[in-house]
Amino acid sequence: MSWLPSLKTATPEEGYSLAIKMSRMAVKLTQPDDEIRKRLRADYANSADSLTMVSQVVATNFQTVAQANNYWSQS
Amino acid sequence: MSWLPSLKTATPEEGYSLAIKMSRMAVKLTQPDDEIRKRLRADYANSADSLTMVSQVVATNFQTVAQANNYWSQS
Amino acid sequence: MSWLPSLKTATPEEGYSLAIKMSRMAVKLTQPDDEIRKRLRADYANSADSLTMVSQVVATNFQTVAQANNYWSQS
Amino acid sequence: MSWLPSLKTATPEEGYSLAIKMSRMAVKLTQPDDEIRKRLRADYANSADSLTMVSQVVATNFQTVAQANNYWSQS
Amino acid sequence: MSWLPSLKTATPEEGYSLAIKMSRMAVKLTQPDDEIRKRLRADYANSADSLTMVSQVVATNFQTVAQANNYWSQS
Amino acid sequence: MSWLPSLKTATPEEGYSLAIKMSRMAVKLTQPDDEIRKRLRADYANSADSLTMVSQVVATNFQTVAQANNYWSQS
Repeated sequence: MSWLPSLKTATPEEGYSLAIKMSRMAVKLTQPDDEIRKRLRADYANSADSLTMVSQVVATNFQTVAQANNYWSQS
Repeated sequence: MSWLPSLKTATPEEGYSLAIKMSRMAVKLTQPDDEIRKRLRADYANSADSLTMVSQVVATNFQTVAQANNYWSQS
Repeated sequence: MSWLPSLKTATPEEGYSLAIKMSRMAVKLTQPDDEIRKRLRADYANSADSLTMVSQVVATNFQTVAQANNYWSQS
Repeated sequence: MSWLPSLKTATPEEGYSLAIKMSRMAVKLTQPDDEIRKRLRADYANSADSLTMVSQVVATNFQTVAQANNYWSQS
Repeated sequence: MSWLPSLKTATPEEGYSLAIKMSRMAVKLTQPDDEIRKRLRADYANSADSLTMVSQVVATNFQTVAQANNYWSQS
Repeated sequence: MSWLPSLKTATPEEGYSLAIKMSRMAVKLTQPDDEIRKRLRADYANSADSLTMVSQVVATNFQTVAQANNYWSQS
């Protein structure tokens, strides 16, 4: 099954979770080694700037997801 | 209750506050430990570049929120 | 009164000023201490890269403001 | 044959793969030497921030691909 | 007279020049001292990464200008 | 003749090439000295992060070019 079957989500919060998943997938596809990624996690999870950079990627992906969902216009 | 029930806000200023909340949530979901985040805050809140990076994330999220609200077209 | 009552401005130049204001507000809301921000200003105002980063945030916010004003289509 | 014959893809996941390809192509066209790129890969694949930067580029390219596919609106 | 009377330009190349002007204006408004900016110029004009950062800001502003001109649709 | 007569290209690949050209032009207009740019090239072409930053600028410019070409909708 696809890790990204659709950009549609039921709610904005689910859309935000999808944006996080998308942000991590680029990292995983670039560095497929689970052990190395786990080690790197200790780096970025303890650096303010690294976390801000992660938040920037999520914000960019969330723009895409939100647009795909027409900004969940009924909510 | 969802932390992000909707992208709609009554005013641009509330939309800006939501953009800040969204920017912080990616950090919180990546580093859930409150103590570590508090410690990191001392780092980025005292660095000009770190604060500019935060402002960049907020600007990106605000684009999404503003679009969702049709730029608060009556205001 | 709100610091951001509307995204509408009379002219592109006023829109650019608003984009600068929005860029600074995220910093202010993250670091509310006036004294610390004044000290940090000495840092970023004397660093080429820091100023470029500020300009990036302004460019992002100006995209939002310009869109809200339909690019000031009569001007 | 073109490396980029079209921005259309059958699914979001294929679109994400295309976004990764586009992100790498700018690097390849700027540094065409395969040996040097292989050596550099060891650098960025072991740095949390480097991987986040890569993810940022992918997110930006995915915005373009998603728009080109009308966000795969049936899926 | 305004430094930004309009986002409309006759050609894409003029639009690109305007995007450069906009990118510099944020720097100028943040650091109004001509002497300091001249000194900083020696820094960023001799650093590859600094120049790439400048190019990023220009690209962002050019998005805005191009949209305002409907991508110069006749050209 | 203009270096940017139009944002229209026949194919996505040509559009990508144009995005690279646009990304380099901001550098050239900021640092017009050919010798210095050649020297700087040795820097960024051998740094993973520098190349990723270049790819980010290209991605941003490609967004503009793709939009101008309506994402090459027939292809």
